[in-house]
Amino acid sequence: MSPQGGLGVAVIGTGKMGADHVRRLHHVISGARVTAVVDIEAERCKALAEEMEGCTAYAEPEAAMAADDVDAVLIASPGPAHEAALLEALGRDLPVLCEKPLTPDAASALRVLEAEQRLGHRRVQVGFMRRYDTEYAKLKRLLDGGELGRALMLHHRHRNPSMPSWFTTEMLINDSVVHEMDVTRWLLDQEITAVTVLKPTPSSLAPEGMSDPQLVLFETESGALVDVEIFGHCGYGYQVWAEAVCERGVVGIGDEHGPRLSADGRWGGRVTPDYIERFEDAYDRQVRAWVDATRRGEVTGPSVWDGYAAAAVCEAGVRAQREGRRVEVELIERPDFYQ
Amino acid sequence: MSPQGGLGVAVIGTGKMGADHVRRLHHVISGARVTAVVDIEAERCKALAEEMEGCTAYAEPEAAMAADDVDAVLIASPGPAHEAALLEALGRDLPVLCEKPLTPDAASALRVLEAEQRLGHRRVQVGFMRRYDTEYAKLKRLLDGGELGRALMLHHRHRNPSMPSWFTTEMLINDSVVHEMDVTRWLLDQEITAVTVLKPTPSSLAPEGMSDPQLVLFETESGALVDVEIFGHCGYGYQVWAEAVCERGVVGIGDEHGPRLSADGRWGGRVTPDYIERFEDAYDRQVRAWVDATRRGEVTGPSVWDGYAAAAVCEAGVRAQREGRRVEVELIERPDFYQ
Amino acid sequence: MSPQGGLGVAVIGTGKMGADHVRRLHHVISGARVTAVVDIEAERCKALAEEMEGCTAYAEPEAAMAADDVDAVLIASPGPAHEAALLEALGRDLPVLCEKPLTPDAASALRVLEAEQRLGHRRVQVGFMRRYDTEYAKLKRLLDGGELGRALMLHHRHRNPSMPSWFTTEMLINDSVVHEMDVTRWLLDQEITAVTVLKPTPSSLAPEGMSDPQLVLFETESGALVDVEIFGHCGYGYQVWAEAVCERGVVGIGDEHGPRLSADGRWGGRVTPDYIERFEDAYDRQVRAWVDATRRGEVTGPSVWDGYAAAAVCEAGVRAQREGRRVEVELIERPDFYQ
Amino acid sequence: MSPQGGLGVAVIGTGKMGADHVRRLHHVISGARVTAVVDIEAERCKALAEEMEGCTAYAEPEAAMAADDVDAVLIASPGPAHEAALLEALGRDLPVLCEKPLTPDAASALRVLEAEQRLGHRRVQVGFMRRYDTEYAKLKRLLDGGELGRALMLHHRHRNPSMPSWFTTEMLINDSVVHEMDVTRWLLDQEITAVTVLKPTPSSLAPEGMSDPQLVLFETESGALVDVEIFGHCGYGYQVWAEAVCERGVVGIGDEHGPRLSADGRWGGRVTPDYIERFEDAYDRQVRAWVDATRRGEVTGPSVWDGYAAAAVCEAGVRAQREGRRVEVELIERPDFYQ
Repeated sequence: MSPQGGLGVAVIGTGKMGADHVRRLHHVISGARVTAVVDIEAERCKALAEEMEGCTAYAEPEAAMAADDVDAVLIASPGPAHEAALLEALGRDLPVLCEKPLTPDAASALRVLEAEQRLGHRRVQVGFMRRYDTEYAKLKRLLDGGELGRALMLHHRHRNPSMPSWFTTEMLINDSVVHEMDVTRWLLDQEITAVTVLKPTPSSLAPEGMSDPQLVLFETESGALVDVEIFGHCGYGYQVWAEAVCERGVVGIGDEHGPRLSADGRWGGRVTPDYIERFEDAYDRQVRAWVDATRRGEVTGPSVWDGYAAAAVCEAGVRAQREGRRVEVELIERPDFYQ
Repeated sequence: MSPQGGLGVAVIGTGKMGADHVRRLHHVISGARVTAVVDIEAERCKALAEEMEGCTAYAEPEAAMAADDVDAVLIASPGPAHEAALLEALGRDLPVLCEKPLTPDAASALRVLEAEQRLGHRRVQVGFMRRYDTEYAKLKRLLDGGELGRALMLHHRHRNPSMPSWFTTEMLINDSVVHEMDVTRWLLDQEITAVTVLKPTPSSLAPEGMSDPQLVLFETESGALVDVEIFGHCGYGYQVWAEAVCERGVVGIGDEHGPRLSADGRWGGRVTPDYIERFEDAYDRQVRAWVDATRRGEVTGPSVWDGYAAAAVCEAGVRAQREGRRVEVELIERPDFYQ
Repeated sequence: MSPQGGLGVAVIGTGKMGADHVRRLHHVISGARVTAVVDIEAERCKALAEEMEGCTAYAEPEAAMAADDVDAVLIASPGPAHEAALLEALGRDLPVLCEKPLTPDAASALRVLEAEQRLGHRRVQVGFMRRYDTEYAKLKRLLDGGELGRALMLHHRHRNPSMPSWFTTEMLINDSVVHEMDVTRWLLDQEITAVTVLKPTPSSLAPEGMSDPQLVLFETESGALVDVEIFGHCGYGYQVWAEAVCERGVVGIGDEHGPRLSADGRWGGRVTPDYIERFEDAYDRQVRAWVDATRRGEVTGPSVWDGYAAAAVCEAGVRAQREGRRVEVELIERPDFYQ
Repeated sequence: MSPQGGLGVAVIGTGKMGADHVRRLHHVISGARVTAVVDIEAERCKALAEEMEGCTAYAEPEAAMAADDVDAVLIASPGPAHEAALLEALGRDLPVLCEKPLTPDAASALRVLEAEQRLGHRRVQVGFMRRYDTEYAKLKRLLDGGELGRALMLHHRHRNPSMPSWFTTEMLINDSVVHEMDVTRWLLDQEITAVTVLKPTPSSLAPEGMSDPQLVLFETESGALVDVEIFGHCGYGYQVWAEAVCERGVVGIGDEHGPRLSADGRWGGRVTPDYIERFEDAYDRQVRAWVDATRRGEVTGPSVWDGYAAAAVCEAGVRAQREGRRVEVELIERPDFYQ
């Protein structure tokens, strides 16, 4: 524990997402303090550290994790840097909240999976924060309640107003649909077994050469069928919907909330402009749950297995997207450790 | 019956409303034909008659009602002309559909009420067409079903984008709120006993000197409390809502339907611009029901009693509006004839 | 014209659908009269004819069409009987409203297509009545308006509470999804080029051996992608939704209307129990439009080409369903006659 | 500051509301710690204190406020005890978050108002937590934005499934409608000048002798008209709606969110059962804002003036309820101190 009380957290990576987590730990979450920030951009990192009493800037994750006042690690660096940081943290037996993706591919995820098993207890939570969204959580409870019978189909909609210029067609799978992959696995409590990607004629408003929108299909172990509309350049806002078609009823979430205005011949409301506004509360709840569990010595959220499975489904998804055919998902058998 | 089959109808008054009924009887309603049109504007009337085979133009209601091919009368002339036309039709024992108001005041409505009772059977239906609107009809069925218990309160909203320049503050009661008066009496199956009119500071977009919007309160025989927001210049469209607060539940109608569009950072739909579009189907259903009932020799819709009661409530409403106080409604005892 | 005025209509087939059309023509639609009813069940047919003045019962379509008081034909017999009745009517140059399907397969539909072309003018309208539904019509207008850009995807939901015991897996395509086929072709104004059918593990509440629900995918000429959830045994009611994903916005129809009730810890409304209630107005509007156009000597609704195209897509759909693969749709080149 | 860092808070009153605040400060809010709990029920108080490290149980507010580790006070005791605790805290210059009502009547509220002015700086925030609800906050921003013009009317709905047996008709004003009083003053940024209470025939499901529901009318300085339906025994859940009728548009909040279920012939969602679930986030945000402001040495939320004004409007409301007439609100002139 850090001397001033509360969990001392090292935040690795202080870009957009990392800086947001620093703000959250510092201002919003009780029981935790940011005691270390790590970034290759030394100036930015130092400036950030100076804003908070008792916080030190580091250039290397290893140095931060070695500090006395660091009790836990939040990894928000770019995906390719995750494996090394995760292995270091596991080597030191430190609790980790790792932003998605766990690692960029299934093989590296598997190495993390093995390291955690060698350690003998769970230490890593993956940042699939939709599980902490109020509406998704209510949907999960309804499905688990069993009154609606088995879920036969899921329909997802995932729309962004636009994407940064460096965003690629593959990233539609790896960075966007990865959320629906995790949500599907979590809601249905089973693995995805195959992926197909269908591409309509692209929108003329999508960047030249980008196939946008797409319809991604998942099949699951129990034979449920899942479709995901992913649209990176819908223009009008950020919209996430999910609908579960069950044997005894259909249940959906994601209708936009907030004030309903009638004016100028129209009624309706505002669409949230981005995921930060739409899922702000979910991010807060995720980090709070991680801090609370960590202080109790537990790990309760999405596991390394979840991170590995998402990586494997992403690999199948990108191949399905590239080759224009159904691709089966290859997973190792689930270790008892993660049952 | 007119020689070509179907009910021969004389339409008295061929202004906006009357011309719309002519179109309806000619094109939409089975079992009826317009055999006579009556208007002081001879040219307009003649031109309209020539559009329809077997239709004659008249200057006077009496002449039209005397024609052999006239089996029934639809009165759509200005309110002050209604009494004479109604008495003439009752004198000839002709079925009548009379646009609201039955007559402009309670005293004249009472004379029509007495004339119909002398005739000994009901012949007159008043044009309170909201009773034929699909949603109001469903609301009525729900309330009559009894599962929700007694209705304790009604909340009404009645908004127009704007009013013609000649529209007066009194007409907000007599021409607009009169619909809520009838709907309230019909939904609750009881009379209105007192009226209060409250006036907030008017909208700066309402005409100089017009008190708009207003909140009109009704009390009913059973002690139910009813509030009506009447807003003549809301600017954005025509909106009619109703909500019944019952002992075991609350039920509302009037949310706007139709396509739901997400675009430009907003979600929602279109507000209908006027009552003609909003209640088009209700007008059709009203006239169809009148034609069908007339052919069976029956009168099924809103009665002269309903027209008289509305006139009496309007009189109380205008006094309440003028004098800024609660005004009790004075009604004669309901004759057995109208039980 | 029949002596009493109005279009004399022979209704072929007086089962559930036919009897409903008889009622509609007799009570609801102006300008038409049922002068002939045809059914192999002589007793039922005779009883029905006797209810209406001037209506005769026939055992054979030919005899009815030969009668002097028959000006037009409404075909509501089982699909396999359609071809003969259509050819007979075309031979007599009689206007026809033919319930869907035009004929049960593409080859027979092609024979009707050729017969109408030989006749030299359009005489047949196919009963795709969703085109007359208020909401679909508004959706069509929005898409045609062009402000939303090109439609990239359509998502359809088509749910029934349950199906009759004799309903087969193939009929999910031929009798249910056929509506989405026509609506897709009409909304996008282009042909469907390929069909794929995906089958999740069936609901345990669907009949043994029936694959229900299914996800049917269409590709269109312009490369739009269309998915249809067809669910025959959803249990809770009849629900039809459509959502168009366009370049500049997303627009959907089909949210349930009517009174919104808050009671017993829940808010919401009633789901219509069947297509008859949901699309009652569309059926009325369809027949009214057909009667009006016929009296003007025109044909305005879905053509024989639309019926043929639907039959061809259905054939591809059933093969895709059976063989578990994508099947291309084979269409003859569209004749100038149907441009 | 308490030795372990963070604001040391004494919670006065550990009943339902107080215990919930203890949980919130201990588990949810960063930067604060419960260092003292005060209650006359010594056992309950002691047990609660023992659950938290560094927390002491007291029998008297004075003793708690005198403790070294108490930096701020949260008052959640019954209303009649508020004045003494507030004066004690002001005497010690301690920041206070005081649950509503500030005090039970206007005269005592005025004494607190004077005490704070004598102190010379603001120290007290009143617990009108609806100002911290996401939807109300968005509504406030829309109204303040000015694009909709002036607000002409507000319509409020405030429904509870049922009330405890000791709940009186007066408490409908003092404990329930008091929220709409504050929200109205805050949204419109002006005082309420008169109150009228109208009573329909009570629901047969309300307790014998209780007039429930009621319609409460407010008039404001600018002449806006506000109606509040207060219903203590609606049976089906907790519902709070607000609708602002403005010159250029109407905007409403409060439609229920969350999963939308279609099953058993109905579509819709769940109504929250109570204010704790409905406003959980608002309570969190309120206390977080108070802690943050207190640590910065500021007071930002509803002031003693707001508490006094609410008490004065409540007094007028209860008189209006009792005497069946419009009652004007009497307020002292607003001191510069609270401008």
